[in-house]
Amino acid sequence: MQQEIVFYTNPMSRGGIVHWMLEELGAPYRLEVLEYGAPMKSPEYLAINPMGKVPAIRHGDVVVTEAAAICAYLADAFPEAGLAPETTARGDYYRWLFFAAGPVETAISLQSCGVRPTAEQQMQLGCGAVATVIDTLAMAVKDRRYIAGDSFTAADVYVGSHIGWGMQFGTLDRRPEFEAYWAGLKERPAHRRSEAFIEKAMAEQR
Amino acid sequence: MQQEIVFYTNPMSRGGIVHWMLEELGAPYRLEVLEYGAPMKSPEYLAINPMGKVPAIRHGDVVVTEAAAICAYLADAFPEAGLAPETTARGDYYRWLFFAAGPVETAISLQSCGVRPTAEQQMQLGCGAVATVIDTLAMAVKDRRYIAGDSFTAADVYVGSHIGWGMQFGTLDRRPEFEAYWAGLKERPAHRRSEAFIEKAMAEQR
Ligand SMILES: N[C@@H](CCC(=O)N[C@@H](CS)C(=O)NCC(=O)O)C(=O)O
Ligand SMILES: N[C@@H](CCC(=O)N[C@@H](CS)C(=O)NCC(=O)O)C(=O)O
Repeated sequence: MQQEIVFYTNPMSRGGIVHWMLEELGAPYRLEVLEYGAPMKSPEYLAINPMGKVPAIRHGDVVVTEAAAICAYLADAFPEAGLAPETTARGDYYRWLFFAAGPVETAISLQSCGVRPTAEQQMQLGCGAVATVIDTLAMAVKDRRYIAGDSFTAADVYVGSHIGWGMQFGTLDRRPEFEAYWAGLKERPAHRRSEAFIEKAMAEQR
Repeated sequence: MQQEIVFYTNPMSRGGIVHWMLEELGAPYRLEVLEYGAPMKSPEYLAINPMGKVPAIRHGDVVVTEAAAICAYLADAFPEAGLAPETTARGDYYRWLFFAAGPVETAISLQSCGVRPTAEQQMQLGCGAVATVIDTLAMAVKDRRYIAGDSFTAADVYVGSHIGWGMQFGTLDRRPEFEAYWAGLKERPAHRRSEAFIEKAMAEQR
C-alpha cells in the first residue's frame, strides 16, 4: 500500500511550488490548508515544522519542510515520475536547486529588508551582490528549455517558480532569458492546476 | 578511467566544507587555490563560477558551485563512499541540507548586515526570525549523532560545518545540542585533514 502524502499549505505562499510539484508527480495527496497566524503556530503544526511556516509535507512517517527539499525528496521518492536525473548526473540539478534556495533567497531577502551590502559584505555573504545573483540565474537558464539536462525535473519546478513569481511580483526583472524559460514551463498542465488553486482562493478573498 | 576532480578554493572560505567532503570521499582531487580579489574575478574563473566565489569543483565536464550542492553531488557521484542515504529515504537529508543552505544562511546574512526583521517581514522571509532558525537547527541535531539517519552523510558535513564554524565565529551560541553534535564529528580524520590545511594557511599568513 502507498503511504499517504499530507500537504500543508496556504494558497498565498511558497506552498504553490510544492503544489505544482505534487501535480507533476501525479500521486494522490491530501491538502491541509492553514491560515496565517495562530494555525501555523499551533503545537500540532509546530511538531511538523518548528519554523511555523508552510509548505511542509508528511509522507507516511517522514516529514519534510523547505520547498526545495520537498521537491527533491518527492522526485526521489517517486522515481517512476522521472523528475530527477540519474544520481550520476546531478551536477546542474543540485547546483541550481541550491543556488535558488540559497543565494537567490538571501539576495531577495536582503533587498526586501532594504539592505544594500557593501563591497566588503558582498565577499562574505553567500549571495554577494544582488545583481550578480540575477545575472548568474539568467545565465543558468539562457537558451535552455530545462535547467538540468534534456528533460523536465524538480529543479525546473523550484527554479521556475522563483523566476515566474519573481517576475510577477517585481523582484526579478523581465529579462528575455527569464521570459523564454518561463514560457516553456508555465503552460504545463500541472502548473496550471496549481495556479487555479491560487486564483480560486484569491477570488474567494475578494 | 576516473575523471579528474578539480577543487577551487581558498583556505579561509566556505571551501573548507567541500574540502572536508572530498577528504571523506577518499577520491583524488587537484587543489586550485585562488586568492580573494582579482583571481576570483578573472574571466577564466568566472566561466566556472559567474558569482566569482569559491568553492567550486569541476569533475570531468561537470562544474558544480554552492557548497551544499557540491556535497550532495559528490555523495551521489561516488556511491561507494556511502555518504548519501538511499534515494527512497532522503527526507531528513534534503530537509536539513536545504534548511542550512537556505534559512540558516539567510538569517546569518541578515544578522551580519544588522537587520532585525519586523514581525511582518518574518512572515514573508524564508527564514522568519533568527531565533526560530537557531531553535529549529538545535532541534534537528538534538540527541542525534547524525542528522539524516543512522550513518554519517554529506548532510553532516554541510550542517556540521555551519554548526562548528558558527560556534567558532560566534554567529551561533554554544548550545549543548550543538556542542554534542559537533563533538561527534570534529575528530573525524577527514575533518582534521581539512582543518590542518586551514591552520597551515593561517600560520603562513602570520
Ligand atoms: N524556507 C521556507 C520558507 C517558507 C515560508 O517562509 N513560508 C511563508 C509563506 S511563503 C510562511 O509560512 N509564513 C508564515 C509565518 O512565517 O508565520 C521554504 O522555502 O519553504
Ligand atoms: N553560496 C555560496 C557562497 C560562497 C561564498 O560566498 N564564498 C566566499 C568565501 S566563503 C567568496 O568566495 N567570496 C569572495 C568574493 O565574493 O569575492 C556557497 O555556499 O558556496
